[in-house]
Amino acid sequence: MRMYDIIEQKRNGGVLTDDQIDFFVNGYVAGSIPDYQASALLMAIFYEGMNAGETARLTMDMARSGDMVDLSAIRGVKVDKHSTGGVGDKTTLVIAPLVASLGVPVAKMSGRGLGHTGGTLDKLESIPGLSVDVDMERFFRIVNEVGCAVIGQTGNLVPADKKLYALRDVTATVDSLPLIASSIMSKKIASGADAILLDVKCGSGAFMKTSEDAVALAQCMVDLGEEVGRTTVALITDMGRPLGRAIGNSLEVMEACDVLKGTASEDLTETCVELAANMLFLAGVGSLEKCRKTARTQISNGQGFQKLHEMVAAQGGDARVLDDYALFAQPACSREVRSVDGGWVFAMDTGRCGIASVALGAGRATKEDAIDPAAGIVLAAKTGARIAPGDLMATLYANSEERLDEAERILRGVYDIRDEQPEPVPHFFARVSREGVGRFGA
Amino acid sequence: MRMYDIIEQKRNGGVLTDDQIDFFVNGYVAGSIPDYQASALLMAIFYEGMNAGETARLTMDMARSGDMVDLSAIRGVKVDKHSTGGVGDKTTLVIAPLVASLGVPVAKMSGRGLGHTGGTLDKLESIPGLSVDVDMERFFRIVNEVGCAVIGQTGNLVPADKKLYALRDVTATVDSLPLIASSIMSKKIASGADAILLDVKCGSGAFMKTSEDAVALAQCMVDLGEEVGRTTVALITDMGRPLGRAIGNSLEVMEACDVLKGTASEDLTETCVELAANMLFLAGVGSLEKCRKTARTQISNGQGFQKLHEMVAAQGGDARVLDDYALFAQPACSREVRSVDGGWVFAMDTGRCGIASVALGAGRATKEDAIDPAAGIVLAAKTGARIAPGDLMATLYANSEERLDEAERILRGVYDIRDEQPEPVPHFFARVSREGVGRFGA
Repeated sequence: MRMYDIIEQKRNGGVLTDDQIDFFVNGYVAGSIPDYQASALLMAIFYEGMNAGETARLTMDMARSGDMVDLSAIRGVKVDKHSTGGVGDKTTLVIAPLVASLGVPVAKMSGRGLGHTGGTLDKLESIPGLSVDVDMERFFRIVNEVGCAVIGQTGNLVPADKKLYALRDVTATVDSLPLIASSIMSKKIASGADAILLDVKCGSGAFMKTSEDAVALAQCMVDLGEEVGRTTVALITDMGRPLGRAIGNSLEVMEACDVLKGTASEDLTETCVELAANMLFLAGVGSLEKCRKTARTQISNGQGFQKLHEMVAAQGGDARVLDDYALFAQPACSREVRSVDGGWVFAMDTGRCGIASVALGAGRATKEDAIDPAAGIVLAAKTGARIAPGDLMATLYANSEERLDEAERILRGVYDIRDEQPEPVPHFFARVSREGVGRFGA
Repeated sequence: MRMYDIIEQKRNGGVLTDDQIDFFVNGYVAGSIPDYQASALLMAIFYEGMNAGETARLTMDMARSGDMVDLSAIRGVKVDKHSTGGVGDKTTLVIAPLVASLGVPVAKMSGRGLGHTGGTLDKLESIPGLSVDVDMERFFRIVNEVGCAVIGQTGNLVPADKKLYALRDVTATVDSLPLIASSIMSKKIASGADAILLDVKCGSGAFMKTSEDAVALAQCMVDLGEEVGRTTVALITDMGRPLGRAIGNSLEVMEACDVLKGTASEDLTETCVELAANMLFLAGVGSLEKCRKTARTQISNGQGFQKLHEMVAAQGGDARVLDDYALFAQPACSREVRSVDGGWVFAMDTGRCGIASVALGAGRATKEDAIDPAAGIVLAAKTGARIAPGDLMATLYANSEERLDEAERILRGVYDIRDEQPEPVPHFFARVSREGVGRFGA
């Protein structure tokens, strides 16, 4: 078999055989297929696409390229949740304890933030003492004893994706549906969960700008998951505005606590409840409607918050910060950003919000950058708000005035203020499962 | 400027700027742009194409990537001829002396054969003593004194093409019109001729399978040549069958001599006359019709053959072989291949003919292979011939019976013999110049 023929076949619009896909993935990981042939194939896939069978084979080959995590040491149905990346997305911090408080185990391996989106690990590490570098044995023990744990990836998970993603990132072949889907799903499959909930973001702060694109990606991933025997559901959620009001690591932990305490904004709470309900549904707890009610109950009775306490303590963190936010590391300086104009916040450039938070020190521009746990943004006004000149738009936190200057400059470009009131946009657009696509509010 | 943005822009169907094309070609030759980004761009160009301006800029950047030959030391209008590669194409050996015998200088740098097509240098080297490794000073002296010389490329000519072609060859990005055109024309432009005649082959033995594809390539190259100030004409010629009857190095020199002596088949003679007439026309000798007549005269009066004698002698060759073919190195063995069936030769797989000649030792499968100057094929039957069982189809020459066995096996697959007489196919399909496309026989 020759890599040349594989490139040519895809380039001519053909369908690759299982053997050809195996040859490519295994050869590329082993180093016998050079980068320049891999990038030519990736570009051909960008144009020609892959059918469901090809995408499934690619995904499984990638998943099997490294360690496959065995979660059988954990009792119960293991449901994993994955978000395609958003700004202010702290839902994992809420959902993991909420679901675990109902006896459904959550054994989550998560990632760090890069670019304009934050990472759950960075958020958790803003809690003094908490460690995400946990070995598998301790990970399983915490999940079995407490019910949930969120740790960093361990071992050699999906090396094919690491190598392919690095190549796609420099050859303009990232935005290909089968390549995005196989990248995400190979990691979920290798992580060993029985069922998978996908949170596919769409809008100005997401990779997918429209709900149609997001549904197409979701459908592809749901098909993939089902094809390899993992029940998979995807929710298409709004990233046309940041999720909640806090962007930044300790700021987002605080807002997650507020959700579990029942004091957060209703939109963020509703999002967390919907995601948690779908995880509970996938774990077989009951109907979606019943799961929604149950999830809300675990907020109002405080048991979700109690579970977060237990998880933080089990991972070595100082759980007192969850009740007394003053115990978090504090920012050196802050600034209130006030509106010059009056009118309606018609739209927000959410990606730019994320970039402003990186400028403040809350995120990484490159993998090597250090994170400032206290830096970030608390938004006072979001899309749909009516504002007058001089109204507070956002408060910025950082360790220097220079960072505040830079972030303020960026943030002022986020808001599209008009005399016109925008149409309300739902937080959920659709739910995609093997039964098909269900539109919210439709 | 970043290579990533250049790839993305082309991938999105955009037009690259001059600066972007300069950045790519210069960076790739210098090694600052890696192969994997270059191959991704080449694949995007395969899909999106390039407009005339982009192709011209690419071509000139490639031409200027190495030495630009200065032919001003040679008196007169220098016309270069380039063939896109065929089986049995010995026309340069006929045309160069024919044109030179009329006082038009031919200073030709040629290539070696690879794959199923032969190279003029290999053919010339079958003449005992003849050297194609000639330095520029001696090259200019021979052309000024004798009128023509055919030598190997010297110096660092178009390194960008060498590097890009090697990459295209392993990434399935060879068959892109702007990339083929820029590869050919960058070399012609760097070679320094004032005018360029292109012989674009089409049919089963050529890269372009149809005359439509060949015309499109020709038009692209004519536009390119004119854009950079070189008068360019292209003839679209048939490669649905081998050119003439001989395939192999010394065998083709003999057939070229036969043309110049007026004893070759009319189809080959007609092809050589048409090409020579177009070179003379480009040199300003007169109307095409007048040039055709003049070329024929130089055959009948023996002056073309006399000029070949002079050129061979000037390049150190033993010109006596041109009159006494027994002085060529002789093959160790030969075999007559006879038809099993009767009928019409309806079509020929000309590429396969070339592969049979490589099997005999007349060509190279890899750059390192040695050539057997005496090996090859003399075809007795070509497309349109009426044959009976037992009729001679071809005679094979090689240095071993094993090679004859292998070549016979391949050659038997060349002929499509049917009960039906094929429609006659012209040797010329079209002539493309800045005035447009002229169809032959139309």
